[in-house]
Amino acid sequence: MAKITAHDLAKKQKEISVAEFFERNKHILGFGNPTRALITSVKEGVDNGLDVCEEVNILPEIYVEIKNHEDGECKVIVEDNGPGIVKKQIKHIFGRLLYGSRFHAIRQSRGQQGIGISAVVLYGQLTTGKHAKVTSKIQEDRPATVIELAIDTNKNRAEVISRDIVHWEKPSGTRVEINIMADYKRGKHFVYEYLQNTSVVNPHAQITFKEPDGTEHFFERTSETLPRESVEIKPHPYGAELGTLIKMAKHTKSRKLSAFLKNEFTSMGDRTAKAACEKANLERDLNPKEMTREQFLALHKAFKKVKIMAPPTDCLSPIGETLIKRSLKHETKEISPEFIIIASRPPSTYSGNPFQVEVGLVYGGNLPKDTTVKVMRFANRVPLLYQQGGCATTTAISSIDWRRYGFDQKSGKGMPSGPAIFLIHVSSTLIPFTSESKEAIADVPEIENEIKLALRICARKVQHHIHKKVKRKKTREKFELITKILPEIAKKSSKMLDKPVPILDAVITKIMDIVWIEDLIEYEKVSGKATEKPVQTTLLEGPSERHDSGTITKSKIMVVNYKRTSQKFNLYATIPKDAVVGTVNPKPVKIKSNYIKWNLDTIPSADKIDINFELAGLEEGDFDENDIYIENINPSYVIGANKWEGEQS
Amino acid sequence: MAKITAHDLAKKQKEISVAEFFERNKHILGFGNPTRALITSVKEGVDNGLDVCEEVNILPEIYVEIKNHEDGECKVIVEDNGPGIVKKQIKHIFGRLLYGSRFHAIRQSRGQQGIGISAVVLYGQLTTGKHAKVTSKIQEDRPATVIELAIDTNKNRAEVISRDIVHWEKPSGTRVEINIMADYKRGKHFVYEYLQNTSVVNPHAQITFKEPDGTEHFFERTSETLPRESVEIKPHPYGAELGTLIKMAKHTKSRKLSAFLKNEFTSMGDRTAKAACEKANLERDLNPKEMTREQFLALHKAFKKVKIMAPPTDCLSPIGETLIKRSLKHETKEISPEFIIIASRPPSTYSGNPFQVEVGLVYGGNLPKDTTVKVMRFANRVPLLYQQGGCATTTAISSIDWRRYGFDQKSGKGMPSGPAIFLIHVSSTLIPFTSESKEAIADVPEIENEIKLALRICARKVQHHIHKKVKRKKTREKFELITKILPEIAKKSSKMLDKPVPILDAVITKIMDIVWIEDLIEYEKVSGKATEKPVQTTLLEGPSERHDSGTITKSKIMVVNYKRTSQKFNLYATIPKDAVVGTVNPKPVKIKSNYIKWNLDTIPSADKIDINFELAGLEEGDFDENDIYIENINPSYVIGANKWEGEQS
Repeated sequence: MAKITAHDLAKKQKEISVAEFFERNKHILGFGNPTRALITSVKEGVDNGLDVCEEVNILPEIYVEIKNHEDGECKVIVEDNGPGIVKKQIKHIFGRLLYGSRFHAIRQSRGQQGIGISAVVLYGQLTTGKHAKVTSKIQEDRPATVIELAIDTNKNRAEVISRDIVHWEKPSGTRVEINIMADYKRGKHFVYEYLQNTSVVNPHAQITFKEPDGTEHFFERTSETLPRESVEIKPHPYGAELGTLIKMAKHTKSRKLSAFLKNEFTSMGDRTAKAACEKANLERDLNPKEMTREQFLALHKAFKKVKIMAPPTDCLSPIGETLIKRSLKHETKEISPEFIIIASRPPSTYSGNPFQVEVGLVYGGNLPKDTTVKVMRFANRVPLLYQQGGCATTTAISSIDWRRYGFDQKSGKGMPSGPAIFLIHVSSTLIPFTSESKEAIADVPEIENEIKLALRICARKVQHHIHKKVKRKKTREKFELITKILPEIAKKSSKMLDKPVPILDAVITKIMDIVWIEDLIEYEKVSGKATEKPVQTTLLEGPSERHDSGTITKSKIMVVNYKRTSQKFNLYATIPKDAVVGTVNPKPVKIKSNYIKWNLDTIPSADKIDINFELAGLEEGDFDENDIYIENINPSYVIGANKWEGEQS
Repeated sequence: MAKITAHDLAKKQKEISVAEFFERNKHILGFGNPTRALITSVKEGVDNGLDVCEEVNILPEIYVEIKNHEDGECKVIVEDNGPGIVKKQIKHIFGRLLYGSRFHAIRQSRGQQGIGISAVVLYGQLTTGKHAKVTSKIQEDRPATVIELAIDTNKNRAEVISRDIVHWEKPSGTRVEINIMADYKRGKHFVYEYLQNTSVVNPHAQITFKEPDGTEHFFERTSETLPRESVEIKPHPYGAELGTLIKMAKHTKSRKLSAFLKNEFTSMGDRTAKAACEKANLERDLNPKEMTREQFLALHKAFKKVKIMAPPTDCLSPIGETLIKRSLKHETKEISPEFIIIASRPPSTYSGNPFQVEVGLVYGGNLPKDTTVKVMRFANRVPLLYQQGGCATTTAISSIDWRRYGFDQKSGKGMPSGPAIFLIHVSSTLIPFTSESKEAIADVPEIENEIKLALRICARKVQHHIHKKVKRKKTREKFELITKILPEIAKKSSKMLDKPVPILDAVITKIMDIVWIEDLIEYEKVSGKATEKPVQTTLLEGPSERHDSGTITKSKIMVVNYKRTSQKFNLYATIPKDAVVGTVNPKPVKIKSNYIKWNLDTIPSADKIDINFELAGLEEGDFDENDIYIENINPSYVIGANKWEGEQS
């Protein structure tokens, strides 16, 4: 055998175009099989449509149509009412991989890679040999542009096949038509599920889905308010890798280190910049372009030693507790679940990227008890349908010992079984997807940890809930027994002894020896503004803030002291973060975004106190059960409330 | 709010360099956290080293060293004894993503993307700001080249920092040194595991691992033979997407359709090309450059209608049954498993890419009974350590109802529990990894299906095994009872009646009423060539063919007829595909690669027949139990063999 040398091998070395790479590895982009290819194609189109509408503050109207040709070919059409695309950009956006506007911006958006829609074009031409057709209109009084294009995969550039103009009745928008090989029969169900779930977490969007046979499905808009706009931020020092720092310094316009820090980073004011320079032992007026690796290293290390404010979180746009609850309620109507619990964690960061975790848990009802819990996953308001096994959400769920929360789980690891649905939403300026197909979240420890914390909060609440229910049921039985039988005995005894019937309150109290808390929630429709005469208004600009709601949620908490001595303690009632607090009675000592606190005055033995508060900004049923906590009283004396464990629980 | 227009958005549209993309999405490349970053770095270096040595037919000697600096920085050094890299290619191979020699070649190799090692360089500079150092020597009598380089991520091109020449005692080779941020403490164990598993499936490689504290681990070479060289092939017509076909026609040098088909595709001879053209209704001398999309479409459809030979499988290099068994045996020494079963599927294709599945199953012994089975995954001889949940191997395992094979499994789905380890190896010219980090295999239906088939074979064998054991035990008890007690009774009765003791053979036979098969395996060390006087030599050039072995495996199968009538049937004994068959007695009617078949002559009632065969090319213990099947006899009469179900089982 002739010896093969380095020179022989060198002849084979070649550049690989990114389009060529993905053409070969199409499964990485979510086109692994014809079913998935269909969903991915619809998804990329819809995600783009929603993103662009939100960017320009237009309530999205998305139209999806699938035409099913013979031989497994489908035409996927996605149309939005966004601002359109300027003519010369069309070929880049649809005909080049790694081209886009959202990659370089640090804020929450669905698309972030500049790969999605051009990947669909690539897959389409690979499997059908046909060109993609893009119609775009950017101004009401102008015609629309129609471009047919293909991708030259050797160069990763678009080939424009034809250009034309047409009349289009829409004021503005984009329509893309791509022929792909796809399995409509199998994929249909998933497309529907994807669009439905998308609608659930994007109530401001109107989505129409037309099937090949002409059937149309409307996913109605249920909120006229756009989600809070996510604001673009600069990188946070905690997240900047050393290499990124060096690169940024190389390209900065700032001539001094302190200015560089303040101009190019978020959360960097005069004081923090000064502190970082001092810790790093660097002059503040050093020219960042002239710094050595060692100086950057010192600066990079100094970042970790200086207290720097967390990045602003207005770059995020979480779904919000109420909206999640409402969606889950809507989704699980037929299951009639026992309760729905939401836990929302405060924003956090991984590698300097802000992110936030929201979790919902549906429990009981007709949910099967002996199968694995169902998991609904969302990232930046996009449903994730595939790769559940490889997702951080699954790792987080599997690492909790659910047996102690009443679930069935083999040796305390892995997916638990029980009558529950878990919803997990992660929003971030950069979701660390495991691959370009954006189907699963990578196992970043910080994210996994936040998911775990949120799940644990839910789990504890499930436990509280079940515990409370059992305890209350027992006590109620005892109570009913006493209040029925004792008077009977007293009456009979009195009659026999011919004495007056004694007053039994004290005796009952003595036997019960507890504080009984019960609650009641009612809804009242009002016209006009929701809040009236508020004692204190905590208007939280949550993502699902709804000024148009005409419902007032009225909550009444009744506290009865069945103990022998008078009682004095603190009571907390949790409220949804996105609710507006109206009248509160008696006067609370504190109203925070997620709870109200009262210092209850002395309640004499056998006496009762009523607590009332009103919430606006919610719809009927959004808040359907009080979550009550007590402090400064032995929790075992109290039925209907749990011990206050601080703000986290 | 000012209206945002398409023009405003257009200003933000930008090209994203592939290096920049991966810098931001480093988790996609396997650098999601500092532990994983360490393993990925070692892995990319080692995979490259093994690939390049095999390409030039050098037995690989890989040296891995990790230096653990403070502050979580590690220096990873990987050195091979390959042919080296010519000077002007070094900067491209290490300093550009998507550059390499293996992407455009259709054959099995570890690297296929041209991303791996440059990704390590990228990660290193991102996290430490330091440059990578590459030493390469391509000729024995010349000095080595040393290049320090960085990657300009905006351009995806290398920046050469310094060039030098040094003396290096190696005849040729490449050494790369990269500083990375990594968690050595946590990663250490995985690096060891990765190298150990690599050594297990690459017995021709010698791997040395030096830890930061100076400890050296040697993973010895146990085979002096390189694996079968995987040959480069052309694309197969079944796998060519329509778009690929069009692209190939555009770039071909052939002027006629028939020549184009024969020159550019594999498995395309004169006849097949002609048949395809006829089915497509196309002239054979059409110029492929002038064909229309419709003509290509017709051709593409015709491919599916014409019988085309499967692609040659010499582009694959599977591990081989014996080697897998030996490795598993070595791996599980301390567990003393009850048995180890291997199933190897014939090569198959997905989208025209040849692939092959091999599965091993270790059962019983000290393996825990109530935990989830352990899975060892390999792709093209590379161990996969992460993302098990998102891997096709897991989907395949989870989709089998293991309860019917004696495993514990919740509702017949998901990972089973039981005392077993599953080893799954997929080799292919293009492993469809779920992401560039190459940690999990995508759920391609064809691959999943082959894995399932291989697993089912193993599962059935487990069942046979357990069944055989139980049946044999029961029968043996019965047998022992009869052969002990009956003579006793006979003796006593004879004595009492004062009559001679009767001969009981016929009675025993009548009571037993079965054919009893038992086997025995012995090993004999011989010097020189392994095979002597072979009746028929089935030399299969398997990947682990070992001429140096001096062990003969001697198998003896004893068949006793305890039925009342004489019996005549066929008997099959399976043998490892990579064994060489020596003396066989009595004369078999068939010796195939994986079994020997005998037509057993009439065995009179209460008589016995011995079958002997010898195997060479195996080591002691490689073949430690016969797998025996019978045909033309009611299987319920036979103890110690199962019904022959055709060649597949």
